[in-house]
Amino acid sequence: MVLLSGGLDSATTLYYALSRDLSVYTLSFDYGQRHSVELESARKIAAEAGVPHTILTLDTQIFQQSALTDVSIDIPQDRDESAMSSSIPVTYVPGRNILFLSFGLSYCESRNLDSIFIGANAVDYSGYPDCRPQFIEAFQQMANIGTRAGDEGHPIKIEAPLINMTKAEIISMGIKLGVDYSLTSSCYQPSSSGKPCGRCDSCLLRAQGFAAAGVPDPLTA
Amino acid sequence: MVLLSGGLDSATTLYYALSRDLSVYTLSFDYGQRHSVELESARKIAAEAGVPHTILTLDTQIFQQSALTDVSIDIPQDRDESAMSSSIPVTYVPGRNILFLSFGLSYCESRNLDSIFIGANAVDYSGYPDCRPQFIEAFQQMANIGTRAGDEGHPIKIEAPLINMTKAEIISMGIKLGVDYSLTSSCYQPSSSGKPCGRCDSCLLRAQGFAAAGVPDPLTA
Repeated sequence: MVLLSGGLDSATTLYYALSRDLSVYTLSFDYGQRHSVELESARKIAAEAGVPHTILTLDTQIFQQSALTDVSIDIPQDRDESAMSSSIPVTYVPGRNILFLSFGLSYCESRNLDSIFIGANAVDYSGYPDCRPQFIEAFQQMANIGTRAGDEGHPIKIEAPLINMTKAEIISMGIKLGVDYSLTSSCYQPSSSGKPCGRCDSCLLRAQGFAAAGVPDPLTA
Repeated sequence: MVLLSGGLDSATTLYYALSRDLSVYTLSFDYGQRHSVELESARKIAAEAGVPHTILTLDTQIFQQSALTDVSIDIPQDRDESAMSSSIPVTYVPGRNILFLSFGLSYCESRNLDSIFIGANAVDYSGYPDCRPQFIEAFQQMANIGTRAGDEGHPIKIEAPLINMTKAEIISMGIKLGVDYSLTSSCYQPSSSGKPCGRCDSCLLRAQGFAAAGVPDPLTA
């Protein structure tokens, strides 16, 4: 089961899982994100890849204090790398990856699936605590102890194949694997038609990644 | 923040938290449980205690393969202790406490609350992997690493005050703390009017607990 946000990293993760000849399912979350256009991207990516896709709706009471769910908090713009990495950004959504992985565990255990793939990535951007290798390891330990699958000796495995890759490495691998990046969506504050702003951290990191990989971004080219 | 299912253990946990002079919030989950009467119990318990109460609705696509969410799976009846503890029961809901604690983390971190209280209990009934002390410890470790609160040195604390208590000890403590057990609901398959079946594992453990504590259960007395 692949956690598919609709962004560049999760799309690449999906194609990585497919390259390993696995039976793949995909899961997305509608959590009141201001960039809900990414759900439409996730739908298109899953359809293009020919894999089943489920969108779970989260109670919107849950997340507060994040610029990704609260439109009264401004999305930072035009920040350089040192500003981005100086502290955990306001776009951090409290406990989001913990919650998504937990839903993934219940989903997999309910359906006898054996792995969760997550496109978490720690290299280009170390601001999010729930994107670090130590976090993935700690979640795996907890899942091994706290589930029937773990108790019975076949724990659900958390795979984060991109965790130590740069954005450029991710894009280069994805292009080899056949990802259509024109379907992906990275911007935190796209226009109503889905056009990326080009100024938020996510747009800037994406642009740097494509530049470093030496290929044009089909979204902005 | 206290996870309040509406059962005996979580009601006692709520009163334990109140006895420590904390500002208390309560959180319940509507997850399509067949014993949804417990949500009405949770409402009454929170109202009686005078604490804020939030019910989060979970997408019912998530849990499968559990007798608590799938009415086509029979709830075991009239089992003795050795049958109950021989394996993980069909009433196990895949990843449920992991998901509830994860929602708790997001809830607390969004609102600057510092602790999650959970009424998990490992003694009387060791069948659930997500009710063991080792699980609570592993979840705490994961939460310390994966949240902003943990990263900033003030991790959200997971408190499971009942984890090593017998059901009789829980009831005795709850009575001292003023819990009104007539408001609680334990049965996995109550009648539409809320009357407990008296035969499921949960009813049997409750009855044994009140008997061992030497007090009548106001629900059945």
